[in-house]
Amino acid sequence: MRHLPKSIQRVMEELGKLPGIGPKSAGRLAFYLVKRPREQAELLGDAIRHLHETIRFCSTCFNLTEADPCLICTDQHRDAALLCVVEQPLDTVALEKTEFNGRYHVLGGAISPIDGIGPAQLRLRELIERLKRDPAIKELVIATNPSLEGEATALYLQKQITEAGLKIQITRIAHGLPMGGDLEYADAVTLTRAMEGRRAYSS
Amino acid sequence: MRHLPKSIQRVMEELGKLPGIGPKSAGRLAFYLVKRPREQAELLGDAIRHLHETIRFCSTCFNLTEADPCLICTDQHRDAALLCVVEQPLDTVALEKTEFNGRYHVLGGAISPIDGIGPAQLRLRELIERLKRDPAIKELVIATNPSLEGEATALYLQKQITEAGLKIQITRIAHGLPMGGDLEYADAVTLTRAMEGRRAYSS
Repeated sequence: MRHLPKSIQRVMEELGKLPGIGPKSAGRLAFYLVKRPREQAELLGDAIRHLHETIRFCSTCFNLTEADPCLICTDQHRDAALLCVVEQPLDTVALEKTEFNGRYHVLGGAISPIDGIGPAQLRLRELIERLKRDPAIKELVIATNPSLEGEATALYLQKQITEAGLKIQITRIAHGLPMGGDLEYADAVTLTRAMEGRRAYSS
Repeated sequence: MRHLPKSIQRVMEELGKLPGIGPKSAGRLAFYLVKRPREQAELLGDAIRHLHETIRFCSTCFNLTEADPCLICTDQHRDAALLCVVEQPLDTVALEKTEFNGRYHVLGGAISPIDGIGPAQLRLRELIERLKRDPAIKELVIATNPSLEGEATALYLQKQITEAGLKIQITRIAHGLPMGGDLEYADAVTLTRAMEGRRAYSS
């Protein structure tokens, strides 16, 4: 390393801080960028440098956005009756690839006492207020992760909504075998959930 | 994607051009950077943006450097008798982690007619000239990759040096079983090479 140009060392060091990029990958990426036309490094560098500048949270759904309220919250073609609760902005990216046409509420994480994240650190109060404020919302799909934290958050949320006396149908996104997956390799928890969630063929 | 802030889309797009980073990884990395303090994105962005600015090729060994000649070529503690030929600058990074204490010559690739890379596209002529110019060099270790292209380049180089009438010992870096590897999983070519390269225990 000591003989490497400092500019390469710096790129390797900063890339190495990213999740899933070890020292070897960082080296390969840095040298790849050196071999490519200078413009490619400049475009990537500028994009990352200015990443934060125009981004804020939507004050309605707390997704990341450049305009407030965000494009989804202001989209009149969305089904106003359907609201989907997710943990992270990235989750909305995954759901936007589906047929789902409702709106979102991004909690900003899940309840995790071990990480010091309680209900107060999440956008839970804002969700309850949004539900009270917006009578158009008829169904709340809880799509927190199928993890311990995600389940705890889903339960907590359910309780809060009931206590607030809100007349809203609460649903949970289905858990079961992933498509293309192999029953043989599925873990017991997934299989148990898949069994519990079994549906009758309509006859 | 269409609902994502443009700044995030741009980072995902540019990251996705890097080798080994697919659309999903690009998304994860971009959102990771959004969650981290703004300074981290700025440091990474600046490092990448300015990567090319101070880098050039060493006019002696053709490694990447900020000073010409490079730190290795000017290092008087190096063994002047030993020169190691590699394909890429990144190869010197790997070799610098070993006990090797000679100098390098970076070819800039390997002969690969299918990619339009012939001897003229590599720093082969410069190597021959360097060998003629520098009588201190006694041994040339050819450390091109153990691939079809690397082997072809090694052979070509050997022939060129003989034709030039240079009295230099030419060696090839050893091929065999990687340390920690499992004989059972080694491919036939590696095993053949490992057998051919077997050495007697000194008795």
